[in-house]
Amino acid sequence: MVVGVDVGGTKIAAALVGPGHRLLTSRRMSTPPESDALLVAIENIASELARDSPEPIAAVGVGVPCVVDRAGRVLWGNHVDLDGVNVRDELRARLGCPVVVLNDGEMAALAEATLGAARDYESSVTLTLGTGIGGGAVIRGGLLLGGHGGGPELGHVVVEADGPPCPGRCPSRGCVEAMASGTAVAREAAAAAASDPDGPLARAGRHGPLTADVVAELALAGDARCEEILARAGRYLGVALAGLANVLSPEVFVIGGGMSAVGELILAPARDEYRRRAIPPAAGASVVRAALGADAGVLGAALAAREAPA
Amino acid sequence: MVVGVDVGGTKIAAALVGPGHRLLTSRRMSTPPESDALLVAIENIASELARDSPEPIAAVGVGVPCVVDRAGRVLWGNHVDLDGVNVRDELRARLGCPVVVLNDGEMAALAEATLGAARDYESSVTLTLGTGIGGGAVIRGGLLLGGHGGGPELGHVVVEADGPPCPGRCPSRGCVEAMASGTAVAREAAAAAASDPDGPLARAGRHGPLTADVVAELALAGDARCEEILARAGRYLGVALAGLANVLSPEVFVIGGGMSAVGELILAPARDEYRRRAIPPAAGASVVRAALGADAGVLGAALAAREAPA
Repeated sequence: MVVGVDVGGTKIAAALVGPGHRLLTSRRMSTPPESDALLVAIENIASELARDSPEPIAAVGVGVPCVVDRAGRVLWGNHVDLDGVNVRDELRARLGCPVVVLNDGEMAALAEATLGAARDYESSVTLTLGTGIGGGAVIRGGLLLGGHGGGPELGHVVVEADGPPCPGRCPSRGCVEAMASGTAVAREAAAAAASDPDGPLARAGRHGPLTADVVAELALAGDARCEEILARAGRYLGVALAGLANVLSPEVFVIGGGMSAVGELILAPARDEYRRRAIPPAAGASVVRAALGADAGVLGAALAAREAPA
Repeated sequence: MVVGVDVGGTKIAAALVGPGHRLLTSRRMSTPPESDALLVAIENIASELARDSPEPIAAVGVGVPCVVDRAGRVLWGNHVDLDGVNVRDELRARLGCPVVVLNDGEMAALAEATLGAARDYESSVTLTLGTGIGGGAVIRGGLLLGGHGGGPELGHVVVEADGPPCPGRCPSRGCVEAMASGTAVAREAAAAAASDPDGPLARAGRHGPLTADVVAELALAGDARCEEILARAGRYLGVALAGLANVLSPEVFVIGGGMSAVGELILAPARDEYRRRAIPPAAGASVVRAALGADAGVLGAALAAREAPA
């Protein structure tokens, strides 16, 4: 019995995970902005799940939207501020059981590679499209680690040198996160609404914020302008996939996160652009939607917890 | 005693390498364009060096400008055509000794990481700037391999989605090879000469082709237009370094190849752009010139040969 915790920029999802990777009880809460409160929130959600468990918890796995080294120390977070905090040691002391901390994108990559869309492949790259873009890579059976011992920040490869500023704390411009994330889609939607004040986007904007979800809804209902906004995001995603393929040559790209719910509206242009641009020995990867949906992070955290040293 | 062979797009360099990584005898020849003639040329240059050796050759290492899998089979070459050829098996049969075949950029990366500018680091990325851009990565002590078992094609990450077509056989546009290689510098020089028919570049162009070497010579002599062409290439190189740093977080970037001879004219803008754009935990790598110069490929091939299974 383990607990998996997935800390996102806006919400925390956690579950008690039993044998056979079954999610037994789930809990959710919003992410406190401040680091002390965030650690308390993770402690509380894990403790509550432990109390629900019929037997003692063997370990807790935690995915955070940060670069984390193998010792569980946060090197840098794009959307939450835990810089310099050793989250593993902090939580181990509070929870009294082994804790493993990884980047949330790595957790999703681990889950998809073990149980999800990449389970039949040795090498996969998983990208999660949400407010930002995260991800991880399993290459020849092992999680890709950088020189600092943390996972890759796959959303922060530049595809348009003079593109718009990257959202969050990334200092660059034109990263794939700036071109194909939910934030990028919302930005394009605002521009489209401004240029067509009587169009469906502008009308939707009068009832609430023009989020990527609104664009997705209109696109799925057949609005051509919204379809094109998603296709543009997909093409930029494909440009990034081509570069990542030339460097890592996975057999499959798994696309998850909230924005992947629009499916082929983003995946088809991404796949086309990737195939057109990758060098031949790296152009054959499949580009598929994630299989585990919103549970990928929690399941990956639980998988990592099972590997925790006692 | 081993032989190291470095096959480039235009020339083959090879050397007999003795204890302590000493180059004892070197040979050079131009690269035949056709694959059968190329295999014969590699066989001949290695055999001649073996005849010069005071003792039998233990193994031959060969670097080729191609994606090569761990079995020595070429998956794809950008500048030479050996696609589908198992270069290791072909040469082993002809030479009668163990042969190791790797990508030329990986050879240079291995040499710089073991004997050169990255010898004091565990994680390094080496890029060779020549007609194209190649390279390799040693992360946490091991050569980075992709899912297909070959090394990364570091020159083929897109930095400008709608940039000019990539030279060679890459189907993409705006790869760093298209923006910062010798070919890219020559293209910018031709454009500059056309726009200023009485300038130093246009005058130089009347005496021969406007190669990157001509631009480098004029820039080193203080020509502002040529300095700017190199600085532009350097800035695009820095954009690529930022993306590679965010994914692989090496401790040092080693820049080699013919174009690195201009030193800070390219390195300074590359370093600035990289530092400005990389996320904080990946922004601290040094960006230095390669230490082994033109010998890196041959030395890397010799190092790989020493690891050859008998």
